[in-house]
Amino acid sequence: MNGLLRPNKIAVVGASATPGKIGYTVVKNLLEGGYQGKIYPVNPSATEILGLKVYPSIRDIPEDIDAAIITIPAKAVLPTVDELGAKGAKGMIVITSGFSEVGLKELERELVEKANSYGIRVLGPNIVGVLSNSDKMNGSFAPFLPLEGKASLVSQSGALLIAIDAASYIRRVGFDKLISIGNMSDVDFADLITWLNEDPNTSCISLYIEGFRDGRRFIEAARNANKPIIALKAGVSAHGAAAAASHTGSLAGAAKVYGAAFQQAGVVQATDLNDLFNRTLSLSLQPPMKGDNLLVITNGGGVGVLATDAAEKSGVPLKFAPADVQAELKKHMPEFGSAKNPVDLTGMAGTEWYQASIRFAFAHPWVDGLVVLYCETAMTDPLEIAKGIKKAIVDSGVTDKPVTVSFVGGERSEEAMRWLVENGIPAYGAPDLAVNAIAALREYARMKEIVREEAMPCLAQDRERALKIINKARSEGRDSLTEIEAKEVFECYGLPVTPTRLARNEDEAVALAREIGYPVVMKIVSPDILHKSDAGGVRVNIKDDAGVREAFKTIMKNAKEYKATANIHGIAVQEMAPWGTEVILGSVNDPTFGPTMMFGLGGIFVEVLKDVTFRVAPVTSSQALRMLDEIRGAPIIAGVRGEAPRDRQALADVICQYSTMILDLADEVSESDANPVLVYESGKGLKVVDARIILKKK
Amino acid sequence: MNGLLRPNKIAVVGASATPGKIGYTVVKNLLEGGYQGKIYPVNPSATEILGLKVYPSIRDIPEDIDAAIITIPAKAVLPTVDELGAKGAKGMIVITSGFSEVGLKELERELVEKANSYGIRVLGPNIVGVLSNSDKMNGSFAPFLPLEGKASLVSQSGALLIAIDAASYIRRVGFDKLISIGNMSDVDFADLITWLNEDPNTSCISLYIEGFRDGRRFIEAARNANKPIIALKAGVSAHGAAAAASHTGSLAGAAKVYGAAFQQAGVVQATDLNDLFNRTLSLSLQPPMKGDNLLVITNGGGVGVLATDAAEKSGVPLKFAPADVQAELKKHMPEFGSAKNPVDLTGMAGTEWYQASIRFAFAHPWVDGLVVLYCETAMTDPLEIAKGIKKAIVDSGVTDKPVTVSFVGGERSEEAMRWLVENGIPAYGAPDLAVNAIAALREYARMKEIVREEAMPCLAQDRERALKIINKARSEGRDSLTEIEAKEVFECYGLPVTPTRLARNEDEAVALAREIGYPVVMKIVSPDILHKSDAGGVRVNIKDDAGVREAFKTIMKNAKEYKATANIHGIAVQEMAPWGTEVILGSVNDPTFGPTMMFGLGGIFVEVLKDVTFRVAPVTSSQALRMLDEIRGAPIIAGVRGEAPRDRQALADVICQYSTMILDLADEVSESDANPVLVYESGKGLKVVDARIILKKK
Repeated sequence: MNGLLRPNKIAVVGASATPGKIGYTVVKNLLEGGYQGKIYPVNPSATEILGLKVYPSIRDIPEDIDAAIITIPAKAVLPTVDELGAKGAKGMIVITSGFSEVGLKELERELVEKANSYGIRVLGPNIVGVLSNSDKMNGSFAPFLPLEGKASLVSQSGALLIAIDAASYIRRVGFDKLISIGNMSDVDFADLITWLNEDPNTSCISLYIEGFRDGRRFIEAARNANKPIIALKAGVSAHGAAAAASHTGSLAGAAKVYGAAFQQAGVVQATDLNDLFNRTLSLSLQPPMKGDNLLVITNGGGVGVLATDAAEKSGVPLKFAPADVQAELKKHMPEFGSAKNPVDLTGMAGTEWYQASIRFAFAHPWVDGLVVLYCETAMTDPLEIAKGIKKAIVDSGVTDKPVTVSFVGGERSEEAMRWLVENGIPAYGAPDLAVNAIAALREYARMKEIVREEAMPCLAQDRERALKIINKARSEGRDSLTEIEAKEVFECYGLPVTPTRLARNEDEAVALAREIGYPVVMKIVSPDILHKSDAGGVRVNIKDDAGVREAFKTIMKNAKEYKATANIHGIAVQEMAPWGTEVILGSVNDPTFGPTMMFGLGGIFVEVLKDVTFRVAPVTSSQALRMLDEIRGAPIIAGVRGEAPRDRQALADVICQYSTMILDLADEVSESDANPVLVYESGKGLKVVDARIILKKK
Repeated sequence: MNGLLRPNKIAVVGASATPGKIGYTVVKNLLEGGYQGKIYPVNPSATEILGLKVYPSIRDIPEDIDAAIITIPAKAVLPTVDELGAKGAKGMIVITSGFSEVGLKELERELVEKANSYGIRVLGPNIVGVLSNSDKMNGSFAPFLPLEGKASLVSQSGALLIAIDAASYIRRVGFDKLISIGNMSDVDFADLITWLNEDPNTSCISLYIEGFRDGRRFIEAARNANKPIIALKAGVSAHGAAAAASHTGSLAGAAKVYGAAFQQAGVVQATDLNDLFNRTLSLSLQPPMKGDNLLVITNGGGVGVLATDAAEKSGVPLKFAPADVQAELKKHMPEFGSAKNPVDLTGMAGTEWYQASIRFAFAHPWVDGLVVLYCETAMTDPLEIAKGIKKAIVDSGVTDKPVTVSFVGGERSEEAMRWLVENGIPAYGAPDLAVNAIAALREYARMKEIVREEAMPCLAQDRERALKIINKARSEGRDSLTEIEAKEVFECYGLPVTPTRLARNEDEAVALAREIGYPVVMKIVSPDILHKSDAGGVRVNIKDDAGVREAFKTIMKNAKEYKATANIHGIAVQEMAPWGTEVILGSVNDPTFGPTMMFGLGGIFVEVLKDVTFRVAPVTSSQALRMLDEIRGAPIIAGVRGEAPRDRQALADVICQYSTMILDLADEVSESDANPVLVYESGKGLKVVDARIILKKK
């Protein structure tokens, strides 16, 4: 990867002497960027390009090379691999388009296979290239290196990368590297995250994502990184819900599953392009915010109120500062100022008051993060205020807390903000942006606290038995399990299902009912009857033997009337679970992330409000607890209307075990639901009352 | 108001010859702004300021004046009013602070009273002043006139107004007028909206609001305006929920009630400061968007995807263009482009393709609004693209549809966007902003469609009887009504309550039950027992005379055990309404907007999810129907799980009538709830099952 991304010797295969051609632009950009390594233009029909000697073929290059930038037509790329291999190349930056994006998947696959056989990694194809400020390398057809900075950006859109390159100067967001990832035939987001995490010139990894090939590799790489990662996922609305056989399947949209994966990977999300710029700036310049106590210092009530609103919206609501903090701050403002939070120094505030209050507040142990706001006034000089802020931060001696700044004003404020950013302090043109930017540092810290936790392996686990049940159904030509079978599979993974047994006649039903204990529930068991209630195939609260016999007859009769040709296995006799809070668990096999868990409250919460949340399996205990908190109906689990709290821990444990199950059976299970699951009060656990497993088509 | 805001002759009372003083700055600003009217500086101890003759007193001014800008200390302001009155002044722009904001409410009141007695309107006090580009009048201490434009801004924060003044140049958002409104002692938002609506130089009214004195005046003025109004309401999170005696009271936060008022007033909302800039720009330059068909044309897939996401989020989701539109657009792009929506002209798009597709699409009847996106490329010139876009729009001949543009790139793109804005086309640095900006024009058009509708007066209305019931309760020293009394009041306004009668003994109860018809519900009636269920004071589904007698005894016994000292009126016997969908209606007397309605679904929807919505009374029929649609549980009303749709029209009618009631009884009723209200299927109406009225303290 170093050979690919920080090469000392580069061949430009397809270098051209004709201005306007990409092969010319790349050579010109390398030269203009100030690249210090060696450049070997390769072109059979030219002798000199921009003062550089041109080699008719790769073979003719007089020494080994690290990487090649490829700009020749798609069909000519494959033959170059042997030659590059012979020259010891480690990387190919394939700008050329016309591979899998136009349907030529096989050509792309061959290219990667052959390259990898020589130990060559392939970036692209169909990319803009690689730009690096610290290596003064513009190995791309983007016109110049971006504004210098500490973030590195990986973009799946080439056009956007070029636009961001230019915009970096306008937005004051500096980058060390811009990497165009294109078709991701070989090097993908996971590879680049792992590599950038080791890159000494990168402090924050910024991603523009349209889609992954392998979501699990991404999660793994991101979890292991110790630099902040921020992602803008585009295309969250375009994802048409696939035809789904389960409840869970119909609810698993791209936005929710990607959002879950980012949570689990510890990746901060950006909501839009400006948010990506703004949050990249704070994440690249400032340390994580380790607690929830955000202090806002301002010279204007209006922007203070806007910051208060933004803090609440961003998940770091302002609290009043403690009395001692207020008392000290009161010394640096006029009588009518406010030392609460926001701290309003008033429009009379000059550099000195800003400095004194920042120096004190930033060093105070109560303060976890600081936002400084300034409204441009005629009486003060923004640049002087900016310098004062910086000096106070330095004087405070604190380096492990974040600060962000917003100046609202004209050109003088813009200049002051440019100075601040150049001096390591993120500065924004609106108070809510400064608050949102520091909130990103808080989100990052919160996620990192729990993201490293390893998932517990499920203890009770009987894969062999589960496969036997599944294979039996397959052997009968079915791709879904009956409720009884699904519950047996659940049992193999220790999930607390209500005892449910199959009766083939009245006498068996009575015997089973006595064994399970009255009252019982009885349900039709037939792979041909999916909607049991609609078929009159369910009876509840059956209290004695006579009731069982009557129910057996009635259900059988109803089922036959409903569907004369149905293959009926018999009737399930099952424990009548006591009333509890209805929740739903479920799984899908997401095309990107594989086995993925869903949790939600039952009834209208899931049916009307679609109030559900997802995690990619396996789910750790703290992630499972987070799932319980992030649905809108969370208070129900906490206990409402004087009810005792529900058994959160048992529910979280079952989510973990369920997630282990779907991971273990990833090759077999396509979708599943446990619906309803009844959750009892703390300490009393829960019961899976109904179960459903859809198998993968084989 | 013209004399106040467009004066031809201005006295500057407190004009100063000392640079740095506000009285100096104002005179200097008037001169530097190029004000063409006459300026009369007034100061007893100066003779000349910046070349202008100074008058020792207002009396000494040789002719009548229109307005005075006041910069003298607070205590000296009142005495000037007589002199200004004698000079025929029409307005006082009171920059001076130190009035009600420091507790001197009486001084402020006196000032306004006296001024008004001369026909003088007062702007302020405690303001920055008034700035107007069309009048070249900088009557303020803000350093310069804002960037020229067609919007006018009214700001309740002076500091923010100064900052916005400077920022207008950076954000490319032009204003004709900036008006600082300060303490709003006399001239308020409503006055300025009414006046700006007539101002020929204002095309959009932009507001920064911290709070109103009289919310109803605002709604009235805004409803009557025919220019777009956009508001940023600050302080939505700071509003601590007041101690509330009713369910509704505890749910009525400032954000929700202000949001409702903006809806009813037809005012577009901004979410933050940048949003205020961005939406002001589109609202001031472009016509409303009259339908939902938004077309996006782009040269980059990435920004197209981001625009698609933003469109969904902004409430104008993209639809595929019809086949004929696609077929025509296909002619202006390469093979691999896309004519769906977004229309992707690809990175190869130059000015010609943009022009051809825009010219066609903008004129096509299917298209209601157009967003044009451009990602800066090395091969194209942003300014040329910008000019091409403008020309195509002009060539299309269409002037009644809106267009917004986003260029993502560097300085060349910024320059192109400046050119676009100067030529009347709103342009933004990110695709989501361009989409959000055109969505504001769609929101505006949608609101205007229904906002002019007048509320229907309630037909069945018996105010006298209602007041009799209320006065009886008051005469007994109570400030809440019993359920029976509250239902009687509801009946006075035609609300469909379940028949409920008071029984003082068993025999009465039996007689009433027979009259109402079995089954019945019985409930304790006591002003001292608010939580009837907790007291064992409710029995439902009583089927016969014996049941009534038994219930009467038990409830009485329970009530006495619950609270021995309770004053018990008797027991209510009431119709047992058939099951229906539970909803809750309620009202508060909002401190800003007065009587305000709430609607929500009952049970967990209101208790856990706080899924409720508000409107200021009176509520029109179409607003009531909107309320039904804007809660998250809306599908319940539409009918879920195969249920028939609920009776929307009856529910909307009851909301309108309820709102008439609380308006009619505004002086008496503080809060009220109808909870639950049972709504039946279409055509079958609804029933108010329980009622609660809290009286205003007198």
